[in-house]
Amino acid sequence: MNTRTTTPAVFSGVVPPVATPLTADGAVDHASLASLTEHLIESGVRGLFALGSTGETAYFTDAQRVEIARTIVDTAAGRVPVIAGAIGLTAATISETARAIAAVGVDAIVTTAPLYTLNSTAEVAEHFRAIARAIDVPLWAYDVPVRVHKKLDIDMLVALGAEGVIHGVKDSSGDDVSFRRLIAANQAAGRPLTLLTGHELVVDAMALAGADGVVPGLANVEAAGYVRLWDAAEQGDWEAARAEQERINQLFQIVFQVQGLSGDATGVGAFKTAMHARGLIATAAMAAGVERLSADAEERIRAILDELALLPAAS
Amino acid sequence: MNTRTTTPAVFSGVVPPVATPLTADGAVDHASLASLTEHLIESGVRGLFALGSTGETAYFTDAQRVEIARTIVDTAAGRVPVIAGAIGLTAATISETARAIAAVGVDAIVTTAPLYTLNSTAEVAEHFRAIARAIDVPLWAYDVPVRVHKKLDIDMLVALGAEGVIHGVKDSSGDDVSFRRLIAANQAAGRPLTLLTGHELVVDAMALAGADGVVPGLANVEAAGYVRLWDAAEQGDWEAARAEQERINQLFQIVFQVQGLSGDATGVGAFKTAMHARGLIATAAMAAGVERLSADAEERIRAILDELALLPAAS
Amino acid sequence: MNTRTTTPAVFSGVVPPVATPLTADGAVDHASLASLTEHLIESGVRGLFALGSTGETAYFTDAQRVEIARTIVDTAAGRVPVIAGAIGLTAATISETARAIAAVGVDAIVTTAPLYTLNSTAEVAEHFRAIARAIDVPLWAYDVPVRVHKKLDIDMLVALGAEGVIHGVKDSSGDDVSFRRLIAANQAAGRPLTLLTGHELVVDAMALAGADGVVPGLANVEAAGYVRLWDAAEQGDWEAARAEQERINQLFQIVFQVQGLSGDATGVGAFKTAMHARGLIATAAMAAGVERLSADAEERIRAILDELALLPAAS
Amino acid sequence: MNTRTTTPAVFSGVVPPVATPLTADGAVDHASLASLTEHLIESGVRGLFALGSTGETAYFTDAQRVEIARTIVDTAAGRVPVIAGAIGLTAATISETARAIAAVGVDAIVTTAPLYTLNSTAEVAEHFRAIARAIDVPLWAYDVPVRVHKKLDIDMLVALGAEGVIHGVKDSSGDDVSFRRLIAANQAAGRPLTLLTGHELVVDAMALAGADGVVPGLANVEAAGYVRLWDAAEQGDWEAARAEQERINQLFQIVFQVQGLSGDATGVGAFKTAMHARGLIATAAMAAGVERLSADAEERIRAILDELALLPAAS
Repeated sequence: MNTRTTTPAVFSGVVPPVATPLTADGAVDHASLASLTEHLIESGVRGLFALGSTGETAYFTDAQRVEIARTIVDTAAGRVPVIAGAIGLTAATISETARAIAAVGVDAIVTTAPLYTLNSTAEVAEHFRAIARAIDVPLWAYDVPVRVHKKLDIDMLVALGAEGVIHGVKDSSGDDVSFRRLIAANQAAGRPLTLLTGHELVVDAMALAGADGVVPGLANVEAAGYVRLWDAAEQGDWEAARAEQERINQLFQIVFQVQGLSGDATGVGAFKTAMHARGLIATAAMAAGVERLSADAEERIRAILDELALLPAAS
Repeated sequence: MNTRTTTPAVFSGVVPPVATPLTADGAVDHASLASLTEHLIESGVRGLFALGSTGETAYFTDAQRVEIARTIVDTAAGRVPVIAGAIGLTAATISETARAIAAVGVDAIVTTAPLYTLNSTAEVAEHFRAIARAIDVPLWAYDVPVRVHKKLDIDMLVALGAEGVIHGVKDSSGDDVSFRRLIAANQAAGRPLTLLTGHELVVDAMALAGADGVVPGLANVEAAGYVRLWDAAEQGDWEAARAEQERINQLFQIVFQVQGLSGDATGVGAFKTAMHARGLIATAAMAAGVERLSADAEERIRAILDELALLPAAS
Repeated sequence: MNTRTTTPAVFSGVVPPVATPLTADGAVDHASLASLTEHLIESGVRGLFALGSTGETAYFTDAQRVEIARTIVDTAAGRVPVIAGAIGLTAATISETARAIAAVGVDAIVTTAPLYTLNSTAEVAEHFRAIARAIDVPLWAYDVPVRVHKKLDIDMLVALGAEGVIHGVKDSSGDDVSFRRLIAANQAAGRPLTLLTGHELVVDAMALAGADGVVPGLANVEAAGYVRLWDAAEQGDWEAARAEQERINQLFQIVFQVQGLSGDATGVGAFKTAMHARGLIATAAMAAGVERLSADAEERIRAILDELALLPAAS
Repeated sequence: MNTRTTTPAVFSGVVPPVATPLTADGAVDHASLASLTEHLIESGVRGLFALGSTGETAYFTDAQRVEIARTIVDTAAGRVPVIAGAIGLTAATISETARAIAAVGVDAIVTTAPLYTLNSTAEVAEHFRAIARAIDVPLWAYDVPVRVHKKLDIDMLVALGAEGVIHGVKDSSGDDVSFRRLIAANQAAGRPLTLLTGHELVVDAMALAGADGVVPGLANVEAAGYVRLWDAAEQGDWEAARAEQERINQLFQIVFQVQGLSGDATGVGAFKTAMHARGLIATAAMAAGVERLSADAEERIRAILDELALLPAAS
């Protein structure tokens, strides 16, 4: 699909979707973004997922997206590979966005089925083919029905892998049966695809099922736990993996402290609030137009961090 | 919301969503677009809706969209007002698109709730406010849950109208009860909004219910019928309006001749096939990646046009 | 389908879904049910719909349902026909329920697609055929996707009508375009079906579109308005029909006074509260397990009734 | 909730949802049902789930359901416990069905949220309380959103467990994240609930996550594999569990050999076809009104069985 002769970067293990820190007045806080990126790499992650849903990418212009990707790529400096989301309506506009982002040096681009349009599976396959032709880095498919309102077809994904159109899938469908069937179909086809799960509360189980890695939004709050979890799974120590997952899931309770807000305000809002409380970013500011957490919710989130000994000593 | 002191253009009666003719190799066919626009105006429509779903706007780049809008605006030459869709993810990117399109001289911009993101009603309202601040032409809201996967809240729409953020709503929800409640709520608030329906098969009923106009995709195939229908309704001749609607609905059967294709291939595909058969555009080519109708389906569509005496004499 | 040689009863005009009054301890209040039925008939309705969603039929045992149908049939005493819902899982159990209810003398039975099961359109058609074979009164189809989670297929309905399996459809789909297409398809097939709409806020528009009648839950609160509306529509006085509809829709605002409760508690709860305030039933008690309206909501409902001069003089 | 002082039966490990064999003319084939039950017990299952979705319970009358449960209970003869589904609309009718079924000696009853009605979480909780009061065996909750169109709330389930209203949950939601959160919430509450998963393709992963057992429809075709899988998981041999799951998932491919039929015809149809090919039941007949598999699909299913050496020697 592309003319680059280099071997595609390998994405496996923990590949967090990097949050996008903002200043109080809504600008991208590149200093916090660089230090967050550095912190994630030092925590042992094996790759970085820029401009995903956790990165609030849908709220930014292409110009902002390019700068966000640049900061992450420059900070990573080749230590771990970077895959970046190019989220948009259809192949025409996504290709423009993807080319601009790819130009800063990301190792792969990931995108979803078209938005807004009403397409068949054959048309969705053509959509991925058109984008792959338009870029010169590997393309991945992102399956996130809660946002795209379609589920990517398993047979289509494996066929696109066999064609060389896509190199991997990030599965955030929340559908364990479908993900397991994708793993099996990929295996039967000779493993053309790398398969990352976004189901951050069941990484132990998905690793057992055959996932190649995980993209956990919660790793922005604490990456070390996911790294330990994945290492245990790789060593076949499933009880240790499960124990770590269960500890992590207690941390995930921060999300349920937010009440009455939108999905975006709740999830990313809880993450950013906890990251700020841990001193990882300068403010918990959300993208323009997204509502803020109440002081009560912030307090309950701090209490969970405190209980899990995740607050900095001085705080 | 904007600083223009001129009176906003009035959109009422039949305001067709102009289809975007393409050449066989996928470029925008501006000659056909201009002649289609001219034909619609001569048929008596009172406004034009550029870059809507029927116009396949989601499949085009911003550069293409601007040129499409320009051809329509230039052809209209002030005889009827033009409202143009700015479809995108969120306020950040939609504002960029909207400004570029507005610059060619459209009289209003229309957009939907955010795509991809997970927002509350309060956040959706803020989204419309941000876009209205970013442009200097009136903003309209477009309610099309089959594509956006959210329904716009009635109270929010009327509140945004009272604030001066939006000037009207294009309702393609297919939900008659909701549309009637919107009409009543708008009336109770002093009619800040102009309300156009996209329910092209029930225009007589929606006119009786209080719609200010209609945006019928099928008018690309035959606009004169809708103009007659609306004129009858305005004169209170409801039986004539109904009779015309029933004739039109026979024409709409062209859409059901397409089987097994996607929503986009089916609807716009049937319209373009019929437009081509009538000699209104040079080819029935669809946007990149959208599947083509079978020869059988094309034949059945021609048969319906023939039965309704809508084929050109020489064909 | 059935061996009765009598002409099927005609259901047209206003055919309210009779609410089921309950005593404070949850028993069916047959005295209130009889007086409500009498009041509806005196208000000029042309038929009665027993054991529908407004009648809370899903919350009752078959034994209770039979007694409810009996009271309505006995009170009607042949003055207007009675159609009764037989709501259940599949043909096996629905046929049992339908036979028991039919035995008290209802003129028709109405039922939905199967619940709980996962069926194709062909299987749904077979479902209606099996029930029609099992009963000796005419069968109707009830299209209520918000409860059944499937939409009945238009072509299937008309084909079942042509076969003599079903005699009519009650459409509560809220989908105006679909209902209009059903009207047209039925007309093209020689009108085998009688078509009643449940869209109580757009009866004027649906009458113009060709509905044969309406099943308005709100008629339990005030039937006279719907009777006037329908009479005006029949006489072709569409402006009068619209004016009456708009007045009725103000009354429907009672439903929006209930906040934070379930769909069933809200809709039927508002109706029963208003009926009780008007003196039409002895208590506003809801079916077992359904939450009660707040005193605030009750007060706001009374205020709306008062504004529309619908409270009894002494209250 | 009930006055029985005996210890509730324990349901754990493999608890297959017993299919309901039928004769060619649609009657329940009790001989096949008894021999199937015997076969399952001999294969090592630890419990039986009668009258579930795989058992096509929605297609039977209460009289038939009672006889089906009786055959299973009588055949089990106390060797393994039996839990039986009581599927219906609401507490009123479900309680009647449940009492009739319980009378034949089942050890527990399982039911879903109400069907057809529109209820809040508080009302759904009240629904389970009312049914628990009406029966004298333990009640379980069945979470199957694809059929019921609501997801049971995690906090509600655990609260009902703590109250003693329900004793366990069968989770067929297909939502791994939700199931993991249920496991954690149950653990935090002192494990009032036994948690069985219906996700038959990921039993290894769900066992690792903490499921107490599994209800696999596919076990009707081959129970021994699931028994081996569960035993391996219990012994902490996760690689063996995974290998067995992967073999089982190849068998599950029988379901994907059926094309163009309904969900019910496809799933249970594939199971029954395979069971018949294996000689476990006398015919593959489906419930009344459900479409039959094509001869082609049957042939492809036999081929999969053959490849996995699951056909009888003589066949």
